[in-house]
Amino acid sequence: MAKTRLERYADLIVRVGANVQPGQVVFVTSPLEHAELAREVTRSAYRAGARYVDIVYQDAHAQRAMIEAAPENALTETQSWSLARLEGLLDGGAQIGILGEAEPDLFADLDQTRVGKARPVEQVRRYLAGVNNRELNWTLAAHPTAGQAEAMFGEPDVERLWEAVAYSVRLDEPDPVAAWSVHADRLRLRAARLDALQLDAVHFAGDGTDLTVGLLDGSRWRGGGLSTQSGIYHVPNLPTEEVFTCPDHRRTEGVVRSTRPLALGGTVVRDLELRFARGRVVDVSASSGADAVRAQLEVDDGAAALGEVALVDGASRVGRTGLTFFDTLFDENATCHIAYGTGVVFALAELPEGTPEELRKRGVNVSAVHTDFMVGGADVAVDGIGRDGRIVPLIREDEWQLAT
Amino acid sequence: MAKTRLERYADLIVRVGANVQPGQVVFVTSPLEHAELAREVTRSAYRAGARYVDIVYQDAHAQRAMIEAAPENALTETQSWSLARLEGLLDGGAQIGILGEAEPDLFADLDQTRVGKARPVEQVRRYLAGVNNRELNWTLAAHPTAGQAEAMFGEPDVERLWEAVAYSVRLDEPDPVAAWSVHADRLRLRAARLDALQLDAVHFAGDGTDLTVGLLDGSRWRGGGLSTQSGIYHVPNLPTEEVFTCPDHRRTEGVVRSTRPLALGGTVVRDLELRFARGRVVDVSASSGADAVRAQLEVDDGAAALGEVALVDGASRVGRTGLTFFDTLFDENATCHIAYGTGVVFALAELPEGTPEELRKRGVNVSAVHTDFMVGGADVAVDGIGRDGRIVPLIREDEWQLAT
Repeated sequence: MAKTRLERYADLIVRVGANVQPGQVVFVTSPLEHAELAREVTRSAYRAGARYVDIVYQDAHAQRAMIEAAPENALTETQSWSLARLEGLLDGGAQIGILGEAEPDLFADLDQTRVGKARPVEQVRRYLAGVNNRELNWTLAAHPTAGQAEAMFGEPDVERLWEAVAYSVRLDEPDPVAAWSVHADRLRLRAARLDALQLDAVHFAGDGTDLTVGLLDGSRWRGGGLSTQSGIYHVPNLPTEEVFTCPDHRRTEGVVRSTRPLALGGTVVRDLELRFARGRVVDVSASSGADAVRAQLEVDDGAAALGEVALVDGASRVGRTGLTFFDTLFDENATCHIAYGTGVVFALAELPEGTPEELRKRGVNVSAVHTDFMVGGADVAVDGIGRDGRIVPLIREDEWQLAT
Repeated sequence: MAKTRLERYADLIVRVGANVQPGQVVFVTSPLEHAELAREVTRSAYRAGARYVDIVYQDAHAQRAMIEAAPENALTETQSWSLARLEGLLDGGAQIGILGEAEPDLFADLDQTRVGKARPVEQVRRYLAGVNNRELNWTLAAHPTAGQAEAMFGEPDVERLWEAVAYSVRLDEPDPVAAWSVHADRLRLRAARLDALQLDAVHFAGDGTDLTVGLLDGSRWRGGGLSTQSGIYHVPNLPTEEVFTCPDHRRTEGVVRSTRPLALGGTVVRDLELRFARGRVVDVSASSGADAVRAQLEVDDGAAALGEVALVDGASRVGRTGLTFFDTLFDENATCHIAYGTGVVFALAELPEGTPEELRKRGVNVSAVHTDFMVGGADVAVDGIGRDGRIVPLIREDEWQLAT
């Protein structure tokens, strides 16, 4: 019997995304609303030889109740059992995160300072350290919902959204696994071309943006998949269209205007504008959701500085749909983006050692926050600035300017 | 604004059932399908002063995938993080379990030996020990589903089921909390009357049953609520109509025929008949589900002996509905029941100390299993047998024969 679309998607997530190995324990996180996909992923993971599949279903309404009513100092607590599960994951497990907010505006009427603050800081920090140290094979993938379709199309046309998702993740290909192999190779080649340019900074200009992002000596451009320290090649995002690197968090200057709305866990941030001086955000404005961003930026020292810069052009599959998905996983793969918060350390040529303070002194940002937002578009020119001062056009009118 | 029925039910569960104390962490477990009630319980718990509410959503379809495909020795494993969560619960937490199987026959076509085997043995054992030591304030309550209504009425009439549930748990009373206080007092009085009789055994006869259950010296009859060691009074089951005690697991003799179907986690057991000799099940038959029962009885030494005997008459609220709920929480409160597996140690006058082996030598059963099934009905006479050999009629034609 031919596999259903959902089964083929689950297989792609398990075999290409996380690349689950026989005998692994697989840790799935999924909003309640996506149980259908979580179950299909579970079946696929057992077919791939998983020893055990552990699903944590997340409930945004329970989170809302906590933000509304829990004592202030409980908002940032890490539960010992959540940390124990994370240690289980980092002890040889695979992770699959299913994304897609059924009600993107669910927290919009809440105290945005509490919305931004509510996160288990110790757990997030340990998780990000594990990701940076390449301790786990992981992937994130989205599942279409009526709420997302409503936000995108003005009507809950889930089938139309499914078609856009299937196209974006190459499920329309006769052999999606082979198509992903070709695609990942192309992204790796693009990253290698960028490395060869020996850039010192990237400059974004146009549409209200004039931002220079200083790059880190020793950082490389990455794209496609990653390998864990134990050698498991996995694709952390489905879809992925980006090449990205870790910037020097001390050398961001200028102003950046977000080009797409940002769904920030229950609050949609619109028209976000950040001003940077000597690497740090010194001014935040937005037509909605500014307080949620401000609360995030105050979580710790590293939150208000950049940790990632990523380049994507309009020829990407997601870009070609012409859609805003109100889901960062997709929207960040339609166009260039940057992230405030912890640095993508796995982009460095060699994993740096040292305390968070030592890393930050060497330009590698460390934080319990990592929030991507979209800054590219047809009116935003992207240039590379070489160590010799040479200007290299990278993207013009949403088109990649280098070969490949 | 008047509270909805669901809000009033959630308040009953939180304030009467678990009796959540200010500052407690509340551990909720709920099948996915009951998120509506789990969320309402969460809000109610925060209103009662909970520090944090931790929900684990259970997915029967993921469990099915595990039973189908996980390696044999993974079926009984306890995950370290599940044990860590349990330790968190036993360290001053409250527990609320939401019950109600949306698809009671979901595991019916699976290998019943694997169905019966699939349980995290170490975790269940630790949990039952915590319950027996009265380390937590806990409650179980059910949530109506279309699947259950379909099984009960032949059509998915959830509203009709809700009315039966609301009546059974006294939500129809103007002040359900006060009504529960009166009801719990009545059950405590009934238990005290039984204690005064100084029974040595209970005898069930009729409708294919002829069973003598020897009682344990030092065991008491219990009913209504329980107090934790730290003094929190809670009502472990909503509804509860039973008075129960811990039998001597070595002294069960005869044959017992179950009077109602038993929903055993995905398999409905019908027409169960067990034969006991010197306390142990020596023969199992059923028109469906016998293998699932057999697999449970093989989990450990204590599984095949009794751990509870409970008396309920037809005048109970659940009994008066005249319905079979296909949910043990309700069906066991419509009629007399017994349980194979671990003993209800909290029924003893003094908590016994010792290893499981020592406890079993003293007649207190210990197991990772505890499965109640219904043995009472209009045609089953229940007698007490005094230590002096005197016969005391307890229930005739579903009517309680003692005062109160």
